[in-house]
Amino acid sequence: VSELRVDGDRLWRSLMEMAQIGATPDGGCRRLALTDEDKQGLELFRTWAIEAGCRITQDAVGNLFAERPGSGTRRPAVLIGSHLDTQPSGGKFDGAYGTLAALEILRTLNDHELETVAPVVAVSWANEEGARFPLPCTGSAVFAGTLSLEEALAQRATDGPRFGEELRRLDMAGPEPPGERRVAAYLEAHIEQGPVLESTRNTIGVVTGGQGLRGLAIRLTGSEAHAGTTPMEHRRDALVGAARIVTAVNSLPARHPEALATVSRIEVEPGSRSVIPGRARLLVDLRHPETEGLDRLEARVRRLAAELAAGARLEVEVERFLAMEPVVFDDGCVAALRDAAERLGEPSLELRSGAGHDAVYVARAIPAAMLFIPCRNGVSHSPEEHAEPEHVRAGCDVLLHAVLERAGVSPRPRPAPSAA
Amino acid sequence: VSELRVDGDRLWRSLMEMAQIGATPDGGCRRLALTDEDKQGLELFRTWAIEAGCRITQDAVGNLFAERPGSGTRRPAVLIGSHLDTQPSGGKFDGAYGTLAALEILRTLNDHELETVAPVVAVSWANEEGARFPLPCTGSAVFAGTLSLEEALAQRATDGPRFGEELRRLDMAGPEPPGERRVAAYLEAHIEQGPVLESTRNTIGVVTGGQGLRGLAIRLTGSEAHAGTTPMEHRRDALVGAARIVTAVNSLPARHPEALATVSRIEVEPGSRSVIPGRARLLVDLRHPETEGLDRLEARVRRLAAELAAGARLEVEVERFLAMEPVVFDDGCVAALRDAAERLGEPSLELRSGAGHDAVYVARAIPAAMLFIPCRNGVSHSPEEHAEPEHVRAGCDVLLHAVLERAGVSPRPRPAPSAA
Repeated sequence: VSELRVDGDRLWRSLMEMAQIGATPDGGCRRLALTDEDKQGLELFRTWAIEAGCRITQDAVGNLFAERPGSGTRRPAVLIGSHLDTQPSGGKFDGAYGTLAALEILRTLNDHELETVAPVVAVSWANEEGARFPLPCTGSAVFAGTLSLEEALAQRATDGPRFGEELRRLDMAGPEPPGERRVAAYLEAHIEQGPVLESTRNTIGVVTGGQGLRGLAIRLTGSEAHAGTTPMEHRRDALVGAARIVTAVNSLPARHPEALATVSRIEVEPGSRSVIPGRARLLVDLRHPETEGLDRLEARVRRLAAELAAGARLEVEVERFLAMEPVVFDDGCVAALRDAAERLGEPSLELRSGAGHDAVYVARAIPAAMLFIPCRNGVSHSPEEHAEPEHVRAGCDVLLHAVLERAGVSPRPRPAPSAA
Repeated sequence: VSELRVDGDRLWRSLMEMAQIGATPDGGCRRLALTDEDKQGLELFRTWAIEAGCRITQDAVGNLFAERPGSGTRRPAVLIGSHLDTQPSGGKFDGAYGTLAALEILRTLNDHELETVAPVVAVSWANEEGARFPLPCTGSAVFAGTLSLEEALAQRATDGPRFGEELRRLDMAGPEPPGERRVAAYLEAHIEQGPVLESTRNTIGVVTGGQGLRGLAIRLTGSEAHAGTTPMEHRRDALVGAARIVTAVNSLPARHPEALATVSRIEVEPGSRSVIPGRARLLVDLRHPETEGLDRLEARVRRLAAELAAGARLEVEVERFLAMEPVVFDDGCVAALRDAAERLGEPSLELRSGAGHDAVYVARAIPAAMLFIPCRNGVSHSPEEHAEPEHVRAGCDVLLHAVLERAGVSPRPRPAPSAA
């Protein structure tokens, strides 16, 4: 069993075949949640899973489960997977990698006629991206009970229809109540969407949890005035205050080592060439692995904004418009991934997930963890998103061995299924 | 003659009557160039000028001249006036003040049966604001020969039609070739559109010239990346570089005392909450009374932009998209205004025009100068634009006496005209 390896070529071919669905001319993918392309992607996954002998079920929010039974009929499942929807201008790997790696693991178990004790279930979660519908990780959040099914079904697409309407139109839901399935562990493989593994030359990121997030909106009000007639000392230039805040926010992590701080948006008014900006609005994105760290960061930004606005004779309002608490992944699941990487000789690094992922939602209800593989230049959500075939294979091997550890291997072999 | 004063109440009533045309509910005015409202404003001015016995002519670009003949039939005219068009959300005084002050001077000369040696001509220039049509000071620029008639007529309104088409539709042009009129001096009264007179408690600004202007567009290119996964040291955040440039530009005038420097617009992309800005664009507005000063400022901004972009690992391009050379007003015209203010006991201050004005264009061809009166809080281009009646009167009195000095007073009285 310790010699067991996935078929990296087959996994790569499946990724490339999936990437044909919603392929864009620039080499990217566009499979927005609950569109015809998303449905096509899911159908391809379903077909492959049926060929692998799995029992397919769908729940009421559109998550699809492909179950390979275990020998221990009463054992809760080991769940593995990710999502198949993409950003409007997405790539071939974000989501598809984890979903097809899960499938590849089921195929590998079949190839080697290996029976696990716990069932192994591959899942494709609905609307992870939150691009067409506003609630990211809709499927996993409903599964974990942090989002109600009603709220999920009622959300509206940017192009109009409700989530529930599109689920019905595409016949993408099933009768299963989300979250009723008994699960012992959830493991997810994903591209890193950041540059750390690549720049540290590690092939596996063992993800120990998800950072928390605070989103702050800062509004500055000064006075519009003529740029050609208003002496510098009379000005109340909202952009000057905003610029000082941008600089200060950017330098926060220097003193808060685990923090990330970004001003991602700035808007000034009136924006006329010869007019001093009277109003500015900033969006500040703060991340930290601990709640107390987030609290400190937020307090610091509020203090800085007040001081710097006063220094520029501006009025200021700070509003928290978004808060996500940090998640710490399950020790056992993290250890299973860490040990598997070590046994396979893959250089690995522990890190925290900065992006939102299905695993971060699932972890609020079920023991869970994730692994990352490098992606070129840290780029994702882009047609240029790329992962090396050897990393794709290595991540899937590590996931396989973590699954075997969590699910347990039954002593008797099991014949491969005949294709359905 | 030195006892002569305008009728301040009549001037105020005329301003308020003109403000009824295109009046907005918030107390402002909307008379966009070459609209029905602009035409109505011009017709009211024409009617009043005819009542004052003037000979009306219009030139091919839509400037309207109301001439009160002088005794010296061959003497070039003293031209006074401003414009009647407004910004989309303009006030009652910008432009209308100088135009109606010119009319009030003609009326005052009539009241006192005073004949000047040179003709005195009141003018309303076409499209000063450059709001509906893109070329500011269209009428005065064509008159001064810095803009061709063809280019003026070909410019398109934001709502579609060409300048020439609208002139014909509204019958707002005449046969006179612009600029052929013989003019000895041009004097213009205007609200300051800045806070200097108000804060120094002067009633008259004697304007000695117009600042020059440079408009620079700065483009910064870094890398879009995920705000939750990209370590601070890996970032190429275009907004961070832009913020440092904003701060540096704002502090330039501290070392260049006559300069004004403003970043009036900033745009960053993609502007998504969780994405580090990859691109930023700034508009920088630089003003200085001397060309060498402008050169120094521009060179300084280019150097700063290069240094600060490099420090943030960004690419940078700087483009000069606008340049207006400084104008120095005619010594004799400036002295006429300064002396008149002194004789009338009005506290005055010499200053430079920061805004564009018809006088700044006219001065490239003809001896010219301007006077400013205070406006409340320095506000203009706004329904809140306000000038005090006593300042409105004082500015017109000073303009009257400067006109008399430039035009010369004929020894014989002239009977008032009968209304046309």
